[in-house]
Amino acid sequence: MFDTIIRGGRISTASDTFFCDVGITDGRIAALGADLGTAAEIIDASGKWVLPGGIDSHVHISQPSGEGIVMADDFESATRSAVIGGNTTVLPFCMQERDVPLREAVNAYHARADGECYTDVSFHLIICDPTPAVLGQELPALVRDGYTSFKVFMTYDGLALTDRQMLEVMAVARETRALVMVHAENYDIIRYLTDQLEAGGHTAPRFHATSRPVIAEREATYRAISLAELSDVPLMVVHVSNREAMDEIRRARRRGLKIFGETCPQYLVLTENDLDGLNMEGAKYVCSPPPRDAASQKACWEGIEQEIFSVFSSDHCPFRYDDPQGKLAPRGRTSFRWVPNGIPGVGARLPILFSEGVMKGRIDINRFVALTATNHAKTYGLYPRKGTIAVGADADIAIWDPDRRQKLTHAMLADGCDYTPYEGIEITGWPVTTLVRGKTMVRDGDLIGRKGHGTHLTRAISAYA
Amino acid sequence: MFDTIIRGGRISTASDTFFCDVGITDGRIAALGADLGTAAEIIDASGKWVLPGGIDSHVHISQPSGEGIVMADDFESATRSAVIGGNTTVLPFCMQERDVPLREAVNAYHARADGECYTDVSFHLIICDPTPAVLGQELPALVRDGYTSFKVFMTYDGLALTDRQMLEVMAVARETRALVMVHAENYDIIRYLTDQLEAGGHTAPRFHATSRPVIAEREATYRAISLAELSDVPLMVVHVSNREAMDEIRRARRRGLKIFGETCPQYLVLTENDLDGLNMEGAKYVCSPPPRDAASQKACWEGIEQEIFSVFSSDHCPFRYDDPQGKLAPRGRTSFRWVPNGIPGVGARLPILFSEGVMKGRIDINRFVALTATNHAKTYGLYPRKGTIAVGADADIAIWDPDRRQKLTHAMLADGCDYTPYEGIEITGWPVTTLVRGKTMVRDGDLIGRKGHGTHLTRAISAYA
Amino acid sequence: MFDTIIRGGRISTASDTFFCDVGITDGRIAALGADLGTAAEIIDASGKWVLPGGIDSHVHISQPSGEGIVMADDFESATRSAVIGGNTTVLPFCMQERDVPLREAVNAYHARADGECYTDVSFHLIICDPTPAVLGQELPALVRDGYTSFKVFMTYDGLALTDRQMLEVMAVARETRALVMVHAENYDIIRYLTDQLEAGGHTAPRFHATSRPVIAEREATYRAISLAELSDVPLMVVHVSNREAMDEIRRARRRGLKIFGETCPQYLVLTENDLDGLNMEGAKYVCSPPPRDAASQKACWEGIEQEIFSVFSSDHCPFRYDDPQGKLAPRGRTSFRWVPNGIPGVGARLPILFSEGVMKGRIDINRFVALTATNHAKTYGLYPRKGTIAVGADADIAIWDPDRRQKLTHAMLADGCDYTPYEGIEITGWPVTTLVRGKTMVRDGDLIGRKGHGTHLTRAISAYA
Amino acid sequence: MFDTIIRGGRISTASDTFFCDVGITDGRIAALGADLGTAAEIIDASGKWVLPGGIDSHVHISQPSGEGIVMADDFESATRSAVIGGNTTVLPFCMQERDVPLREAVNAYHARADGECYTDVSFHLIICDPTPAVLGQELPALVRDGYTSFKVFMTYDGLALTDRQMLEVMAVARETRALVMVHAENYDIIRYLTDQLEAGGHTAPRFHATSRPVIAEREATYRAISLAELSDVPLMVVHVSNREAMDEIRRARRRGLKIFGETCPQYLVLTENDLDGLNMEGAKYVCSPPPRDAASQKACWEGIEQEIFSVFSSDHCPFRYDDPQGKLAPRGRTSFRWVPNGIPGVGARLPILFSEGVMKGRIDINRFVALTATNHAKTYGLYPRKGTIAVGADADIAIWDPDRRQKLTHAMLADGCDYTPYEGIEITGWPVTTLVRGKTMVRDGDLIGRKGHGTHLTRAISAYA
Repeated sequence: MFDTIIRGGRISTASDTFFCDVGITDGRIAALGADLGTAAEIIDASGKWVLPGGIDSHVHISQPSGEGIVMADDFESATRSAVIGGNTTVLPFCMQERDVPLREAVNAYHARADGECYTDVSFHLIICDPTPAVLGQELPALVRDGYTSFKVFMTYDGLALTDRQMLEVMAVARETRALVMVHAENYDIIRYLTDQLEAGGHTAPRFHATSRPVIAEREATYRAISLAELSDVPLMVVHVSNREAMDEIRRARRRGLKIFGETCPQYLVLTENDLDGLNMEGAKYVCSPPPRDAASQKACWEGIEQEIFSVFSSDHCPFRYDDPQGKLAPRGRTSFRWVPNGIPGVGARLPILFSEGVMKGRIDINRFVALTATNHAKTYGLYPRKGTIAVGADADIAIWDPDRRQKLTHAMLADGCDYTPYEGIEITGWPVTTLVRGKTMVRDGDLIGRKGHGTHLTRAISAYA
Repeated sequence: MFDTIIRGGRISTASDTFFCDVGITDGRIAALGADLGTAAEIIDASGKWVLPGGIDSHVHISQPSGEGIVMADDFESATRSAVIGGNTTVLPFCMQERDVPLREAVNAYHARADGECYTDVSFHLIICDPTPAVLGQELPALVRDGYTSFKVFMTYDGLALTDRQMLEVMAVARETRALVMVHAENYDIIRYLTDQLEAGGHTAPRFHATSRPVIAEREATYRAISLAELSDVPLMVVHVSNREAMDEIRRARRRGLKIFGETCPQYLVLTENDLDGLNMEGAKYVCSPPPRDAASQKACWEGIEQEIFSVFSSDHCPFRYDDPQGKLAPRGRTSFRWVPNGIPGVGARLPILFSEGVMKGRIDINRFVALTATNHAKTYGLYPRKGTIAVGADADIAIWDPDRRQKLTHAMLADGCDYTPYEGIEITGWPVTTLVRGKTMVRDGDLIGRKGHGTHLTRAISAYA
Repeated sequence: MFDTIIRGGRISTASDTFFCDVGITDGRIAALGADLGTAAEIIDASGKWVLPGGIDSHVHISQPSGEGIVMADDFESATRSAVIGGNTTVLPFCMQERDVPLREAVNAYHARADGECYTDVSFHLIICDPTPAVLGQELPALVRDGYTSFKVFMTYDGLALTDRQMLEVMAVARETRALVMVHAENYDIIRYLTDQLEAGGHTAPRFHATSRPVIAEREATYRAISLAELSDVPLMVVHVSNREAMDEIRRARRRGLKIFGETCPQYLVLTENDLDGLNMEGAKYVCSPPPRDAASQKACWEGIEQEIFSVFSSDHCPFRYDDPQGKLAPRGRTSFRWVPNGIPGVGARLPILFSEGVMKGRIDINRFVALTATNHAKTYGLYPRKGTIAVGADADIAIWDPDRRQKLTHAMLADGCDYTPYEGIEITGWPVTTLVRGKTMVRDGDLIGRKGHGTHLTRAISAYA
Repeated sequence: MFDTIIRGGRISTASDTFFCDVGITDGRIAALGADLGTAAEIIDASGKWVLPGGIDSHVHISQPSGEGIVMADDFESATRSAVIGGNTTVLPFCMQERDVPLREAVNAYHARADGECYTDVSFHLIICDPTPAVLGQELPALVRDGYTSFKVFMTYDGLALTDRQMLEVMAVARETRALVMVHAENYDIIRYLTDQLEAGGHTAPRFHATSRPVIAEREATYRAISLAELSDVPLMVVHVSNREAMDEIRRARRRGLKIFGETCPQYLVLTENDLDGLNMEGAKYVCSPPPRDAASQKACWEGIEQEIFSVFSSDHCPFRYDDPQGKLAPRGRTSFRWVPNGIPGVGARLPILFSEGVMKGRIDINRFVALTATNHAKTYGLYPRKGTIAVGADADIAIWDPDRRQKLTHAMLADGCDYTPYEGIEITGWPVTTLVRGKTMVRDGDLIGRKGHGTHLTRAISAYA
């Protein structure tokens, strides 16, 4: 009757936990039942937890990074790591290129993804040059075609928008009901401090953190919220790293605004001390905003527990450091300014939150599901097809062994990097088997699916827009 | 295969919405599936919304009310109105009597309920005389037997506990993991103002509201939270009526405390102006805390939207006013002080929140389910048996017609009262069919089940204790 | 021309600092001038700071303390220590006795003070039994006679008022415009914890602090503010010890309420660790609220700097511990419950704030004057006669040597105690010469005035009532 | 003995009120005394209030305003109006010109002021082009020469600094201990909305208010505070108009930052409705930030009462509208964008606050003195020479008749404008006689002093830097 039955597991959604079989037909969940009988494929999940496959709505793949820097992951390696880490959908960013029609960038990005993916993917758009044509024609057309979220940056050379440009993009979002995501750091503060630090000879990786203080993030967060309030659009503030920025989101939400927050594993388990390593050892922890301190970790946990953050993503942004000739990041050794900005995490995200959050009693399994799957799907227009275990939804399922204990190593993650910043972290719980649209991609920890099973998803309007 | 199938409805849980059949066997949900075939009974739910039956965790039934006052509902009439209003479980209060063993009061209350109920019921305990025997032996034994929640009052003659008694009850709760509910109003303020008002000749019902100002509620709320924090126990603050008290709950939650809040329909749709009616017309709106003003209604909606309130209950507390000889409330006409304190609502609660909340776009249907069923079940130890639609749960289901529009009248509610304070409110959406443990109690608006199908439920420890 | 000229000092008021002579005639400041010529007495203040004499609005003198406990200071010794410590007026408490007319208690207290004082004094009234006669006749009459402030207690056997009694006293305050002072700690919490601690054999002095947690103070502070808000009266919350209670005052002030706060030296320089001493060594630090921790000290400094606290007092409440037969505190050694509750400080208050506050740069000298003199005078109806250096005011002046450095010792303080809790604190700055109504009471550190110069002051209505 | 005696007045400083004579010699206060005898000039102040002359630290005089716009006041007319309105010192802005040494601009501004002033004056510097030479040499030199405050703008064409430039100016302030003042409005928001409004044909003066919403001010206020916090410098946020911006200042102060706030009469007594007048009638109320609404007025009063605002200034910025040929503001009639931005107020400021604040009981006279004189002097390095009535200070004194009642008219103000936005406001209290450095400039309402008596003051470092 069914193609596949997952038998005897403990199923959790964002609100419920129950025990039953899951019957899968044609890649979708066809039934949930106490005993669904037999099927072509029976997956025994007794003693296991059956969860919606993770959705990682913040990953960077094959993205041009300036300065001749080469990103370590293409779609193949990134989605391979993702599926091994329990994910079934990832949302990378298609970056606008100046003087090139946005549609061309989208098409080129599709070309990179097609046939390469182990998980489903769907593209956000990064808007760095909001020309009249982009605002007036291209963006509205792409939203209609299912690219229903834009990301804007308030910092980075070549990416940073002015406040006015932010308002113009938000006006399009208001019109089209696309969701705006924002990287909120004050560009001028960072440039000023970077110049000061370099002038003082402070070029080691750890000064990356010094150059991007909490104030820079807090200020930009407040400003972005103000612009969104003026524009009357919802806003997702990505990768929040500390209490002060988080509290601005909390204040805004309290005023009834639709301001959403995201945090990431690096803000829960790393600190700026991790950047202290000499040369490229410290560089392996360079990301923006930088990891902060223990108090900030505590604050981010509070944000997770108190539902200030609605999504937990990886901000996967991978670079290689086994690079003696500096081919991958030509100037990275000369100053923190030129270190590739980002760390990998698409494979490690779910085990870290499962182990540190659920197993240590900070959050329950329903909140885990909400943070890692359901809320991503609702926020970015993939729900109800994705993000839950319910009849009719895609059979995107991760089966977790809650008892497996191991130290995390880079080798387990199968990405294109040459390290993981989370090396050696003790992990309890692991996604041993993962199905994407009913197809078992990982079985008992082994990748058995083929690349190309994953496909691009056009998306509906966000449930919050 | 199944006893009953609910076919083709739109099902919502606290987090999800999906379309499928619900298969019921032996009173439980046995399967959810795209097409579950046939069954002894087929209920066509196409075009309808299939929701977990409502749980009303705050109702007063057949409760001694002092001063010779007779409560208008017994278990039969109260649960009849409940099930007609889409509920499948209600939690009334078994009141301690002085100098009588608590167990005797429990047994006597069971005797009143047995064989009379249309819905399932489960008893909270009201503790008004925490003697050493009650604290040391009786309460722990009753918690072990499944009476896992206590209510305490900070006001009312004969009920009000001192702060010290509150601490003593909370100490038992900490030991037994029972959940404490509190009626938070400052007794001294109310007595002082009541005396002042009566001395000034102000005895009309509307002075009931004057005698119980927001400050009295806010102060007691803060005090109860402080005592709970000191005692390290979770606390449910029931029937919150205004922004100030709500904000104290919000502050406490922000500090990481497990403080929960409940609000009720009277704080969303009534105001103190409703008490202006002369004689017993105003008296029909006397409840404590009193309804406040439009700004307070707005605040309570904000508390619902922003998840400060986790449960929405009726605080059903019914009295009759067709009482020319004053048999039901002997001194009620002499002063607001003697007016029976409480209003009915067990039948009206769900349609009001559905219509005013969901249909008017303030909350989505998942939040409705959480507020009216799932969170009650989790808070009071009934989950996962009750409170959701999932395989293995009791088939407690309300099928709503979201399109039915009508004016609410008392006649629709079938309770023991002679009025509803919500008479004439325009309602969109109605629970046309309700099943209790798989048994259809209400079909197309008609009560077809028999009393006595409802049974008492012993409860587990709260998910939050 | 003048009786006395203080020459060449640096004068500070609550807002200004200037250099000039002070001319005194008939006990009052007759002129301030660049060069006032000659006089019968010339006091050279060059290099010195000339400040308004301190007003200590919170001291306990010769007060019955229950349990046969004898207070260590009478009016002679208390005001002697006060004047040596730079004070010119102190406000002790006349305690109501049950079943005795309030006026009799006042007269008896006058009898103790008459002819004994080195500083001026003025009596607050402690209301512990607000009978109709007290509320209706006695209090209004005493306010009219210049006893314009009442203190109420929310804790202590025999003193604690119920909320209702608080409301009744506040109603009199509203009518008479007297100012209400409140000792805010939750009586029930303290009794409950004390019983628990004693039952567990925890009777050492340090458990005094355990028995009176921050929550008990915070809760009562909030409650007192609520009662004052309801009553529409200003309120002085005395001896605030921690951030949480302080923040309730800040919140109330932000809402526009006239809620005032006082803190004391023990909350700036002591902690609960000081109670760790065995036997009576720890007892020497027993006061209520107890000193807290370093974070609370920081909070109290913040309250001083940010003007949440308007007055800084000693809460002088002196007991002797050189008491082998237990005559002074019969049961003090058996449990913290019976340790005399209070510590001395009337002599040490000003040097501590001068040294720790002004000399360490936390506050400027104008804020010092406001906190120690001007605001007391304005709050308690002594302004403009007392509390500043201005033409027409009483010549109550302390001349400080800002350079004198010494360790504080009990011998310097000349009170009736046998210790100071501040022994050994390094002090920079000392009030070397003090004039009370133009009469030099202390000259170059030597007490030269006679007792009996000080007199009782009837007071006007508070500037804030 | 004295040149002048002010006899028998009621004197108030920022903290005290007393009755005595004021003796003046050589332009300074030589003595305060109960009876100072006789003098060359006796001014009878019986029944009058003797206050420190007002200091207005925010006035624009003879300032280039772009677009060919001519400011209505030069030093003569502006200081004439100031002294008639009870002021003795005003602080106008010397504006940097691009490509011209800052020192030249200062010299040119001195040339305009020399010999023209009725009050003392002292120049702030406006920095609009912080070149390396300005930052590295010119500013530090000018601070050393007594120009100890800079103003920066976050909006206006040709004036707005980038965040980075703000940081660079603040770095100089940190080094030199100069005080930074900021005009905080978000330039991009204003430009965006202005373009939108004009594109929609909305060019009437009232759209000036629409183009500068509260969010634009709130956002820039928060950003300026963040930059100051990062730079570790105190900051004065000028002309705060509403609750939201004010609350950001309050929050910053609560965190212990030295953030100061100023408000102005237009935010207490005008609203955006005043801009509704057609053509140039509405234009007469155009200033930035614009007046808001009644709730904002209430908020600004709260900021005055709760000491969030430490200074109250006029932001005098005068233009004439009797301009049929458009010579004074050539494009002002074409769009609100080109209306001269600013309103007069240097003469009206003190009577408005005296009447609305003191006489209506919102603040006491001491707070009035602090807000209008003492705090200006302390903030901007003029204290103790200016800002109070104390021996040794300049005899800058305004004698107020608290009983004079009249309607304010433009004719009373003697400025260079052709209107006052406060026309017709009922005023109780008036500064009838004003002395500048002992010289009577206004006597019984008549200007009797000569221009040129006023001189430029070099200033010390701010008391708060």
